[in-house]
Amino acid sequence: MSGNSFGKLFTVTTFGESHGIAIGGVIDGCPPGLELCEADLQLDLDRRKPGTSRYTTARREDDEVQILSGVFEGKTTGTSIGVLIKNKDQRSQDYSNIKDRFRPGHADYTYEQKYGTRDYRGGGRSSARETAIRVAAGGIAKKYLKDYFGVQIHGFLSQLGPVKIDEVDPAITNTNPFFCPDASKLEALDEYMRELKKSGDSIGAKVSVIATGVPAGWGEPVFDRLDADIASAMMGINAVKGVEIGDGFKVVEQKGSEHRDALTPQGFASNHAGGVLGGISSGQDITVHMALKPTSSISVPGSTIDVDGNDIEIVTKGRHDPCVGIRAVPIAEAMLAITLLDHCLRHRAQNAQVKSRTPPIPGQAKE
Amino acid sequence: MSGNSFGKLFTVTTFGESHGIAIGGVIDGCPPGLELCEADLQLDLDRRKPGTSRYTTARREDDEVQILSGVFEGKTTGTSIGVLIKNKDQRSQDYSNIKDRFRPGHADYTYEQKYGTRDYRGGGRSSARETAIRVAAGGIAKKYLKDYFGVQIHGFLSQLGPVKIDEVDPAITNTNPFFCPDASKLEALDEYMRELKKSGDSIGAKVSVIATGVPAGWGEPVFDRLDADIASAMMGINAVKGVEIGDGFKVVEQKGSEHRDALTPQGFASNHAGGVLGGISSGQDITVHMALKPTSSISVPGSTIDVDGNDIEIVTKGRHDPCVGIRAVPIAEAMLAITLLDHCLRHRAQNAQVKSRTPPIPGQAKE
Amino acid sequence: MSGNSFGKLFTVTTFGESHGIAIGGVIDGCPPGLELCEADLQLDLDRRKPGTSRYTTARREDDEVQILSGVFEGKTTGTSIGVLIKNKDQRSQDYSNIKDRFRPGHADYTYEQKYGTRDYRGGGRSSARETAIRVAAGGIAKKYLKDYFGVQIHGFLSQLGPVKIDEVDPAITNTNPFFCPDASKLEALDEYMRELKKSGDSIGAKVSVIATGVPAGWGEPVFDRLDADIASAMMGINAVKGVEIGDGFKVVEQKGSEHRDALTPQGFASNHAGGVLGGISSGQDITVHMALKPTSSISVPGSTIDVDGNDIEIVTKGRHDPCVGIRAVPIAEAMLAITLLDHCLRHRAQNAQVKSRTPPIPGQAKE
Amino acid sequence: MSGNSFGKLFTVTTFGESHGIAIGGVIDGCPPGLELCEADLQLDLDRRKPGTSRYTTARREDDEVQILSGVFEGKTTGTSIGVLIKNKDQRSQDYSNIKDRFRPGHADYTYEQKYGTRDYRGGGRSSARETAIRVAAGGIAKKYLKDYFGVQIHGFLSQLGPVKIDEVDPAITNTNPFFCPDASKLEALDEYMRELKKSGDSIGAKVSVIATGVPAGWGEPVFDRLDADIASAMMGINAVKGVEIGDGFKVVEQKGSEHRDALTPQGFASNHAGGVLGGISSGQDITVHMALKPTSSISVPGSTIDVDGNDIEIVTKGRHDPCVGIRAVPIAEAMLAITLLDHCLRHRAQNAQVKSRTPPIPGQAKE
Repeated sequence: MSGNSFGKLFTVTTFGESHGIAIGGVIDGCPPGLELCEADLQLDLDRRKPGTSRYTTARREDDEVQILSGVFEGKTTGTSIGVLIKNKDQRSQDYSNIKDRFRPGHADYTYEQKYGTRDYRGGGRSSARETAIRVAAGGIAKKYLKDYFGVQIHGFLSQLGPVKIDEVDPAITNTNPFFCPDASKLEALDEYMRELKKSGDSIGAKVSVIATGVPAGWGEPVFDRLDADIASAMMGINAVKGVEIGDGFKVVEQKGSEHRDALTPQGFASNHAGGVLGGISSGQDITVHMALKPTSSISVPGSTIDVDGNDIEIVTKGRHDPCVGIRAVPIAEAMLAITLLDHCLRHRAQNAQVKSRTPPIPGQAKE
Repeated sequence: MSGNSFGKLFTVTTFGESHGIAIGGVIDGCPPGLELCEADLQLDLDRRKPGTSRYTTARREDDEVQILSGVFEGKTTGTSIGVLIKNKDQRSQDYSNIKDRFRPGHADYTYEQKYGTRDYRGGGRSSARETAIRVAAGGIAKKYLKDYFGVQIHGFLSQLGPVKIDEVDPAITNTNPFFCPDASKLEALDEYMRELKKSGDSIGAKVSVIATGVPAGWGEPVFDRLDADIASAMMGINAVKGVEIGDGFKVVEQKGSEHRDALTPQGFASNHAGGVLGGISSGQDITVHMALKPTSSISVPGSTIDVDGNDIEIVTKGRHDPCVGIRAVPIAEAMLAITLLDHCLRHRAQNAQVKSRTPPIPGQAKE
Repeated sequence: MSGNSFGKLFTVTTFGESHGIAIGGVIDGCPPGLELCEADLQLDLDRRKPGTSRYTTARREDDEVQILSGVFEGKTTGTSIGVLIKNKDQRSQDYSNIKDRFRPGHADYTYEQKYGTRDYRGGGRSSARETAIRVAAGGIAKKYLKDYFGVQIHGFLSQLGPVKIDEVDPAITNTNPFFCPDASKLEALDEYMRELKKSGDSIGAKVSVIATGVPAGWGEPVFDRLDADIASAMMGINAVKGVEIGDGFKVVEQKGSEHRDALTPQGFASNHAGGVLGGISSGQDITVHMALKPTSSISVPGSTIDVDGNDIEIVTKGRHDPCVGIRAVPIAEAMLAITLLDHCLRHRAQNAQVKSRTPPIPGQAKE
Repeated sequence: MSGNSFGKLFTVTTFGESHGIAIGGVIDGCPPGLELCEADLQLDLDRRKPGTSRYTTARREDDEVQILSGVFEGKTTGTSIGVLIKNKDQRSQDYSNIKDRFRPGHADYTYEQKYGTRDYRGGGRSSARETAIRVAAGGIAKKYLKDYFGVQIHGFLSQLGPVKIDEVDPAITNTNPFFCPDASKLEALDEYMRELKKSGDSIGAKVSVIATGVPAGWGEPVFDRLDADIASAMMGINAVKGVEIGDGFKVVEQKGSEHRDALTPQGFASNHAGGVLGGISSGQDITVHMALKPTSSISVPGSTIDVDGNDIEIVTKGRHDPCVGIRAVPIAEAMLAITLLDHCLRHRAQNAQVKSRTPPIPGQAKE
C-alpha cells in the first residue's frame, strides 16, 4: 500500500536498489497448478537486460532469477512466490559525483524533497533496474494467460525520435536489438543511434503492446476499469509520459459515426476502441501505446542546483541507455500481462457463474 | 475493491444507475476540521449538470446534492461523508428500444458479456450520470487542497474536433458553455457544434487540467506514482482514450538536452515534465491532457447485433451530448483533486517528520 | 481504506451518525443474478431494531431500508448496491449535557483525542445505530450463501451476566426477545433483566454464531486467514472484547491428543477446531463466540473529566440498552456472512479451476 | 491481497516454505530516517528461533536475517525493505511419510481442498517457520515505535496447560526459555514439560502482550478498529484460537458500573478496557491475551484418512515443539508492533493537523 505493490488479486511487490545487494519481489495470488520454472522467466529477463547491444547501457548483469518459494515439483502451489536477482556489476564510484547534486529531469530532487535522503548510487530505487522484477512477475502472468486462455502479448518499438515504424511484423520484433517489427527501418534506426551516441545526447520513443485472445468481460465498470488500470501500469513505467488505448489522441478529431466499431455476426468490423468498452474487454485485441521521454542522464552539460541550492553545471557520466524506450518493450509487455491476469482473477471472483445470453463474437478480421 | 472505489486514503465509493432512484457515494478519509457545506459542492455540480446549454443533453436534472453524514456544526468530523443526489428526469421509455441490442461503441455488449445482464435504462451504471458523485467528492478534495495548501485546479477544453485552442486565459473558461479558455475561439466552437447537431453526429475533444501550488514530495516511487494514479483517474473517466502528463507524446521526438527541465536557484527554467519526476511532484504545475472519444449515442444509423446475434441497424434516440468532452472538464478537475489529496495524505503518513536539506525551489517563472 | 469499509472482494462501506439525517452504505462486489429485494434485508433489520421489547432501548426506529441501486428487475446486476435508512426518532436534546464531558468507558474521550471534535448527539458515529447497515449488507451475503451454497447462519445468546445457556435449540432462538436458544432459561433472563433495569446498571453477555454448510477451502493461508478475518469482524462490533473460534480459550489446558479432530471416511469425529484449520475452512461448522462488555451508558453516577480536564460526576440519561449483547446477535450473524462471502469470492478468484484429489468429507455427525 | 500481506500503510508481505531455499519478505511503508541494521532484528529472531532449548523443536536454524534494500548509510530511506533468511537444517526425509496423509488438526487437509496440491515438506507454507519474517518485520516496527514514541512491547507466557502465571515481572521474562515472567513458576513449568515430552503429547498455552506508551488517538472508528486489527493480527498467528483485549471474556459477567474505567485529572482509575475505547487507543496500556492450541504434530497415534479417503493410523515423527505457545511470544510482540505502527501512520495521514482541546491524561497509575 506504500507504492511498491501492483495488482489487487495478482499482486506484485518489489524491493531493491540499483546498487544494493539484490533486487527481488513477491508475487502473490498466482493460481495453483501452473507449470513454472526459472527458464520461463529468464527469456524476458534476457530481452530486458543491459549490456546486450551497443544501443543500451554497458552495465553487464546476468539478471539470473531465482524462484525461492511457491513452486513445488514444477508447479505453482497457490502460495506466494519469492523471486531474487543478485546485483553484480555495481560500479558505485561512478555515482559519487552526483551525491550532492540534482540531475535535471531526474528523480534526485523529488526524492530529496519527499524523503530527506536518497540512495544516490545508480539512481537507487528510481533506477530502471527495479523493472527486472516486474519482468519476472510478468513472465508468470504471461505463462498463465497463455496456458489457460491462449492470450499472446506482443510489444514493439513503434517510433524512435524521428524514425516512425510503418509495418508491424511480429516475426521481426525479436530479431533485432531495437524490438523493431519493421525490417525496412533497421538501418535508419542503427544510423540514428550511432549519431546520437556520438553527440552524448538521448532520445524519446513510442512503444506499443498488443494482447490477442483476451476474452470479453474482463475489467470493472467505474474506477478500476481495465483501461484505467492499464494506463496506471504503463504510466508507472520509468520515463513514460503518455498512454493511449486504441486510437488514443486520434479520437479528438473523430466523429462518432467514424469511431464506433460496428458489431456484426462475423465479428467486429474495426477496432478503434482498442479492445475495451466501458472499462471492460470486448474480446478484440487490446492495443496500447505509450510515449517514453529521453533519459536525463546524458553527457551534454546542463544547469542545475546542488543540495545547498547553489547554481552548478552537471554532466552525467556512468553507463546509460541513450534511448530508454528500447528496453521498455519487455517491461510494457510484463505490466500488461500482470494487469490482465489481475482482472482475469477479479472477473472470475464475481462472475464465475455468469452465462451471457449472447455468445462472444470474433475480434476484427485480419485482412 | 470491486471497482467502485477510488483512492487509498481519501477514498470515494459511488453507486447508482442513470435511471434508478438516486445516485450517491461515500467519501472516506477526509481529515476533520474542514469547513464544508452543500454549497461548496454545488458549484461544480452545476458546471457539470446536463440541460444547461444547447450543446449538451436536454435531460434536466437539478443535481442537488445532500450531505448525509460526516459534517457537524459546519465542519468535517473525520468520519465518512455520505452524499446523495436524487434522479428526477428519467424518461425510461426512451431506452426500451435498446433493451435487446448492443449500441456499437457502447458498453452494452461488454456488460452483457461480463454480467449476463444489465440495467439498460439510460446506460445504467455506464452512464456519465455516475460522474456527478465524482464531482461532489472532488469538491471536498478541492476545498481541502485550497484551504490548507492553496492548491488551485483549472480544467479547460483544449481542442474540440478540428478547433484547437491557442490561448489559455483562466478568466474566460467559466464564462462560456464550452469551458473554452480562449475568447477568440468561441464563435468557431458555436458554429461547429450547430452544424454537428444538425448532422446527428458527435465529435471527440481534448481536455486539459492544471494544478498550481502542489508542494514537492507528493507521490510514490514505483507503482503508485502520482502520474500513474493520475493516468488511472483520467482513463477512468467515461470516453477517455489517452492521457498525457507534461509534454506527453511530444517527448517521442525530443532529445534529453531539450526535455530536461533545468533547476536554478530562481526556480525551474521550464516544465516539460508536467510537475512530476520519478512519480513524485516537483513543486511545478501539474499539467494533464486527455483525449475523449465522440459518444456512440448518435442518430446516424449504424450496424450492430442484437442479444440473439442477429445483424441489425441501430439509431440511438434519447437525449445525448454531441461532445461528451465538454462536460468532462469539471469531472477531470474532480479526479485530479481526489488523486492529489489521496497522495497528500499518503505522503503525510510516511513522511510527516521529514525535513529536506534543500528548500523547495519555485516552479517555472511565468513570463 | 479509512476504516469505514470491510471486506476485500465483497466490500461494505458505511456512513452515518446516530442523529444525522440518515445512515447508509455501499455494498460492492455482489455477484450478478442474485434475486434480491428490500424484504430480504428487512427481516434481520427488524430483529436488530430498537424499541421492540422492554429489554432494549426505547428509541423507536422503523429501520426501513431502501435499495437505491444495483438491483434491476428483481436481481442484482453486479454493480454497487446503495442502501439507505432514514433516521426518525432523534431526540437530540437528550445528549446536550454530554457535549463537553467524556462518559467513562465510552468513545467520547478517544474521538476527542483523535479528531479534536465529535458529533456528540447520541454517540454520533460510535453509536450502535451504524450497525443497522452492517445488518442490511449481511442480509445480502446471507442470501447469496444460502441460495448458492446452502449455508445457514445461526446466532444466539449463550450467556447473559450470570445466566448461562446450556441447550442450543435453533427453533427457540427467534421466539424470544433475548435470542436465547434455551427455553428453560427464558424466565431467569427475564427476571435478571427486570432487576437490572431497576438498578440502572448494565450487564455483559456472550454471543455465539454458527455457520453450517460452508465448503472446505475458503480462507487464506497466512495473514488473511478465515479465522483472522472473523476475529476482526467480530472484534469490530461495538462492545466486543474477546473472540473465540471453536474451543477458544479452552485449548489452553487441552493436550494435542485431545484437541485434534480425527478424520474418518464417515466424517470428522469432533469439532474442537471450529471449522477452520490453517486459516482455511474444513467443511465443518464454523463456530464463533464473543464477549460483549456492559454498556457504559448507565444511570449509576460515575467519575470522569470534562473537556477542560476538570473532575466531574456523570449520569447518562437517554435511552440505552441495558445489555447491548442481546441486539448484537443479528449483527454478529451479518458480519460472519459478509466475511464468508468475501472469502468465497477470494477463493473462487484464485482456485476456480482447482480439483482436489480427495473428495470433501462430512462434518461432525450430529448425534 | 491474496493473503500474504498484513497492514495497510506499514505493510509486511512474506514468502517461503519450511523446507524451501529461503524465507523472506518485503516491508513497505517504513518512514525514512530510522536507524536500522540487521542486529536490531536479530535479537527477536534469536528469541523465536528453534533449537534453543529442550522445550522446543530440535531443528537448528541460525535464522540469520539479511536486509537487502531500503537501508542506506545506516538509515531507512523510505523505500521498501527486502529481508531474507536462508533455510539450512531441512531434513526433508522426515516428512515423506505424510505426503499422502492428512495429519488430524493440521492444515494438510484444508490445503489439499483449497489448492489441490501442497508442499508437504515440513508443513510447507503452513509451518511456523514463516513467522520468522513476521518477527523480522516486527523488529523494524518495534524500533520505530520505541525511537519515536517511547512505546515498549512486552510479551510473556501467562499460562501453560494447568500452570497459571500469577506475577508479571518483565525483568524475569527473558531470563528463561518459557518467556515466563514469574520466577516462582519456573520449576513447575520445567517439570510439566519434562513429563509431557516423555508422553509424546503436546499442550496449549495462553500468551499475553502489553504495549506501554501508545498515544491516545490511534485506531479507526468502525471497521478497522485498533482492537479489530489486533484481533486479526493475533488470530492470524498459527495455532491461536482466541483473542482478548483488556478484561476479555471476563466482561460477560461484569456490570457497567464495574467495567467502565473512570477518568480523573490524575489519570484513568483502572484499565478494564485494555487501552482501547471505540476502536481507538486511549493512552492506557494496550493489553492483549491469546489462546494457542496444542500442536497436532505429536507421536501419540491418531486416526485420519489418506488422500484416497482410506482410514489410517498416523504418528507424526519429525522435530516439533511440544508447546507452540512458548515460541509464539516474540511473534505476538511482532504482530502487535506491526499493527500499532500501521495505525500510527494511518492516524498521522488523516489527523496530522488535529489539536485536541483536552490534553491526554495519564494511564492507570501503577501502585
